[in-house]
Formats: sequence, C-alpha cells, structure tokens
Amino acid sequence: MIPDDKFIQSKDVPGPTKEEIRCLVMCKAGISPGDTVVDVGCGSGGLTLEAACRARKVIALDKNPEAINLTRKNLEKHGYQENVLLREGDALNILEELESFQVLLVGGSSGDLSSIVTKGWSKLAPNGKIVVTSILMETRVEAVDVLKKLGTEPDVVEATIAKGKITPRGTMMMGRNPITIISAVKVN
Amino acid sequence: MIPDDKFIQSKDVPGPTKEEIRCLVMCKAGISPGDTVVDVGCGSGGLTLEAACRARKVIALDKNPEAINLTRKNLEKHGYQENVLLREGDALNILEELESFQVLLVGGSSGDLSSIVTKGWSKLAPNGKIVVTSILMETRVEAVDVLKKLGTEPDVVEATIAKGKITPRGTMMMGRNPITIISAVKVN
Amino acid sequence: MIPDDKFIQSKDVPGPTKEEIRCLVMCKAGISPGDTVVDVGCGSGGLTLEAACRARKVIALDKNPEAINLTRKNLEKHGYQENVLLREGDALNILEELESFQVLLVGGSSGDLSSIVTKGWSKLAPNGKIVVTSILMETRVEAVDVLKKLGTEPDVVEATIAKGKITPRGTMMMGRNPITIISAVKVN
Amino acid sequence: MIPDDKFIQSKDVPGPTKEEIRCLVMCKAGISPGDTVVDVGCGSGGLTLEAACRARKVIALDKNPEAINLTRKNLEKHGYQENVLLREGDALNILEELESFQVLLVGGSSGDLSSIVTKGWSKLAPNGKIVVTSILMETRVEAVDVLKKLGTEPDVVEATIAKGKITPRGTMMMGRNPITIISAVKVN
Repeated sequence: MIPDDKFIQSKDVPGPTKEEIRCLVMCKAGISPGDTVVDVGCGSGGLTLEAACRARKVIALDKNPEAINLTRKNLEKHGYQENVLLREGDALNILEELESFQVLLVGGSSGDLSSIVTKGWSKLAPNGKIVVTSILMETRVEAVDVLKKLGTEPDVVEATIAKGKITPRGTMMMGRNPITIISAVKVN
Repeated sequence: MIPDDKFIQSKDVPGPTKEEIRCLVMCKAGISPGDTVVDVGCGSGGLTLEAACRARKVIALDKNPEAINLTRKNLEKHGYQENVLLREGDALNILEELESFQVLLVGGSSGDLSSIVTKGWSKLAPNGKIVVTSILMETRVEAVDVLKKLGTEPDVVEATIAKGKITPRGTMMMGRNPITIISAVKVN
Repeated sequence: MIPDDKFIQSKDVPGPTKEEIRCLVMCKAGISPGDTVVDVGCGSGGLTLEAACRARKVIALDKNPEAINLTRKNLEKHGYQENVLLREGDALNILEELESFQVLLVGGSSGDLSSIVTKGWSKLAPNGKIVVTSILMETRVEAVDVLKKLGTEPDVVEATIAKGKITPRGTMMMGRNPITIISAVKVN
Repeated sequence: MIPDDKFIQSKDVPGPTKEEIRCLVMCKAGISPGDTVVDVGCGSGGLTLEAACRARKVIALDKNPEAINLTRKNLEKHGYQENVLLREGDALNILEELESFQVLLVGGSSGDLSSIVTKGWSKLAPNGKIVVTSILMETRVEAVDVLKKLGTEPDVVEATIAKGKITPRGTMMMGRNPITIISAVKVN
C-alpha cells in the first residue's frame, strides 16, 4: 500500500483514506488486472491510486473540483495517471453514461447513496463488486438497506484502527475514526 | 459525570480524562462516601474531581506544578476544593508519608509504575482498590505484571470509545484513543 | 457494579448487559435517589438491578414472560425486589398508563423504538433522561433520528470493550460486541 | 482473500486468522511473486495459504503436529500445496537452517518471540519484512521492544473488527478479538 504520508493533502478535501482502510477496501474489491473500476467520491485519491495499481482502468468521480485536482496531483506524483480517467460532476449522471464495469467503490459521504448504489449495481458486470465505505451511522444503514433490496446479503465490517506512536515513554495507542465497509458481489 | 467541556484545559497538561473513561474508572474504583482516595498523576484533575464527589477525602499528586495548578482551578470552578489535598512532588515519596487509604488511582504515564503500585498496595486498606489507566502498551503490561506479583488477578478492560458528532449530513463517528483500565481489589 | 457472573442467566433471554456497559448507561442516566426509572426490555435484569440500587422506584417491562421471570430471580438473588415493579406486556401500552418518571432506559432491540421513545419522552419529567442501548446498526440510527425530531441533540457513544483474560501465556484480549448508547436530557 | 468458512478447522488448533486480519497482514507483508515467505506458527494455515497465493515459496512451521496436518489439509483443499514446505518442529532450530528469505510472518503466541524475531531478522534479505500478529498484551510489547533493539521503528496497528450479522431484526454488530499487527522493514 502507499503510505499515508506519501499523499499530497489539502484541508479542503477529505482523505486520503488511511492505509489500513484502503487495504481492507482493496481486499473486499478483489480487483483483477483486466478490471474497470469506478470510484465515486474520489476525494484525495487514496482509493483511486490503489485501484490504479491493480486495474486496467479507473474512472474517478467527484463533484468537488478541488478533489479532482488533488486526485490528479496524487496520480501524477505516483505515476498512475495513465489508466485513470477523472470526471468532475454528478455521480448519477456520470454513472448513467458509463458502460459496464467490474468494481464500484463508493465513499460514504455521497448525498444520494441509494440511487448511486442502485444505478451502479445495474451497470455492474457479472461477479462485479461494490464496496461502500462510511464514517456516518446513517450511511451504513442506507448501504445495507439498498444492497438488501437489490437481493444480496451484504458483508459488513466495522474497522476500528489504533496506531502505535513510538515515543521515549512507550508506545502510545492513537485511535482513528471507526470506518464501516459494506460490500456485495453481484452473483450472476 | 462532569461533561468534558466543563473542565478548564491547558495545552501543557494532559487530560482531562474523557467522561466515558472517568465513568469506567469510577465504576472499578467503587468509592464509598467514607473513603480516602489517592490520585497519582492528577493531570487536569478529571479523576480528582470525580473522586471528590464520591469520597470523604482525596489526595491528588502530580510532579508537574502546572498540573497541580490546573487541578486546583478545576476544583475551584466546580466547588470541590474542600475535601481535596493537592501535593506536588514525587509520588513514591508522598505515598511513603501517607496513612492507609481505600482507593488508589494511577494515571498511566508515571515513570515508575511498578514501584508506585507496590508502595500503594502496601498502604491500601483491606478491600481497598487500585485502578490504573493507560494509553501506553508498555504500561498496561507493567501494571498487569506487578498486580500479578502482588498475588492478585487484575481485571483488564480495554475501552475504545467513538463519539457521534451530529452534523447536517449525519452522525459522524469520531474515534478516541483506546484506554486500558487495569484494576484489582486487595482482598484480606 | 454487580459482576457479570453474579447474574442468573438463561439461554432464552438475552443479557445481562455487561458490567462496563451497565456502568456507562448508569453514568448517562445519572439516577438520583428520589427518581423513578422505567426500564423497557429488561431482559435478564442487568440494568434493572443497577437502577434499583440507585433509584426510589423502578418499573421494568418486557413482553417476554421468561425475561420477567429471570429479572425477578435476579432481583431476589441480590435483594432488590422491594422497589421494583415488573410488568409483562407491550411497552407502548404500559408507558401509556404510567405517570411521569425521571429516567427511561430502552434496550436496543424493541421493535417500535421510535414510538416507545416518543411516548416515553412525553412522560419524562423536566430534566429527565432517556438512554437507549443498541447492538443493531438500524436501531442506533432510529434512536438518533427520533431524538432529533423531539428537538434534542442526542449524545452518541459507541463503546467497544475488550476484556483481558489472564492465562499462563499472557493476557489475551477478548473482544465484545460493540454497543452504542444514545442518550438525551429533556431540558425544560 | 479466502473466506473464513472455506478453511477446514479443528478445535485443537487455533485459527484460521480471520479474513480482515489476513488482509492487513498481507498488506504489511507486501509479498512479491518472487519472494520466499517463512510462516512461524502456521496454526490452521490461514496466513500460509494467503502467502502461497502471492509468493514463489512458503515455508510454514509449527511445533504442533496437528497444526501441520491441518495446514496440509487446507493447502490441499485450495490447491496450494505445490509451493509450500511444511516443517514440524522448533522455530529457532528451523530458522537456523534456512537460507535468506524476504518475508517473515510470526503468529503472536510463540513462546520465545524475541529470539525468533532476532534470528529471523538476521536471515531477512535487504528490504525484507517481518510481520508479527498478536492477541496477547505481553507479546505486543515484546515484539515492539525487540524490533526497536534491532534498530528499526516498528509499525504498530491494533485492529478491532466487528462483523455485521444480517438478521430479520437488523444488522447485529458482532465483535471480534482485537489483534495487534507489528511490522518492520529491514532497510539496507
């Protein structure tokens, strides 16, 4: 994984998603080298870059132009701009235009999560995967609900990570925000 | 419990211990109204004030004069100065001078935890309780080790608390540092 | 607090709520000696007994007759039956009959949480407190939503507790289910 | 990752390491296709199988013959036996015999962790990685200590995972034991 401190950050854009959470999201996404991945709400580009290492093509969306710029800078810094298409705008509209893809990543903070998941699911290739990450209590429930309505039993993981900070007095355990990762496979 | 934001804080002094952790420490300490409580490493006075609400007398120690001053200010703000004795100095020396007491609270960051616990244990009244809180991995182990050597089986609780922040977009779960609470009762 | 292993348990009734969670619920409930407490969904009686130690009167409800029986046995075992009234039946109906009270405790698994909280809130005395505990993702959100609709900003605490098991090889950290505690004060 | 329920389990052998923890360990190990991986304390083979998917060769050790048998069965079930060498016996002795390798995985419960880590470190190729997982408080500290003595600043991650169980009443969050993952890279 790319270390957290190797990302260019901006106070106006959330993220990047921390290393351990990127790791868990990548495990749930199970990206194959030939896959196309759509990353809705790319923020600082944390998941976009990880997907770019693993997939044939990544389409990263954000309605915030500063997020698109920051993701571009991080792609350039790490040399992953070639297989990533950046799209600023409304996720639903952009998803509507896209062909089928194998993996859909959704950052938890999108306003209309149910519509995005439903639209994304309809474009997902057989055995395609959807992975939603969320720090909001309400989004977690919305993600589970919509995935159940789509006929699947979602996998739900709440990950609470603490990192040890090595100090002269000892190893201080520094807490992180708990993140919930909701994922499902489109079987058929 | 006293809300976290009702404590005067200082960037030079750690704490106060968060409400939920103060709550768990008070439960483990099981203070009775006639008890004398010794609070080693009082910091901002979070546990000192909670003990002062519940005990006959509290003796609060810290080697940092700024901690003593800050604890004094918090005691005055909440009207608990009457039954609290503040002592600046080395914990081992001060413990040596004290008579028997019923409850010993130890903030996790004291340098010489084993000696403090051993000395404190020797002064603990029958059925007295010792409660150590720690954010350091090493201190947790040291506390368990010394309490096992003293012939007791300590109770060990790691508490990871996240607080919901109500925002227009939903309830963001904000992580806190995990705290370990090690406690034991002197049965005899 | 009453140790977990001092409760009579039954495989047919959930609970008792673990010591550390009972501790946090009691802190949020802030029961005064003159209070009347209503405990909706008393289960094994874990919170009922803790409330009975602290309040003038406790009314404990459960629709499951086995829960009522188990709570009765636990009250008798610990000698707290005198100030506790046990009521088997539908929470909404029973709340409807009750006079005003100071504290409402709601176990997270009740089917119609919003109605129970709304009805309970209407009976809550000024400065009364409501504390909902939940292991279900959906109930947490429902509790926050209904309390926001009632004009309050709820306090939301997710508590993840691990207990250390002392073994010859060392201290094994045994995880517990994360519990969310949602509480609010009726200010007026 | 291989789903947890696809492993053959035995009540006499711990593990397999849960999917999310295997995922984090694999991220920290950063195995390349040409690597040799040594897995000390292979248990049920959870990490052995994940390493076998990613490495040229895996050497899996356990002093418990039942663990070796169970790992063999799991390798056969998933078709990974070809590039895995199973060795029953004392970890220190076996490490002594081995040539250099790129990744060392150590299950947290080995008795003589410091010696194993020190011996393993001496055999680690440049840029090799060591990843220790532990459920014991003491082992965590021992791993950090020995890695600091070896001149590195270890990465320390405590991962507390809860899994959502989809039930008719809602999504129950089921806690897991917190696991600490201590890792370091041999830079030179």
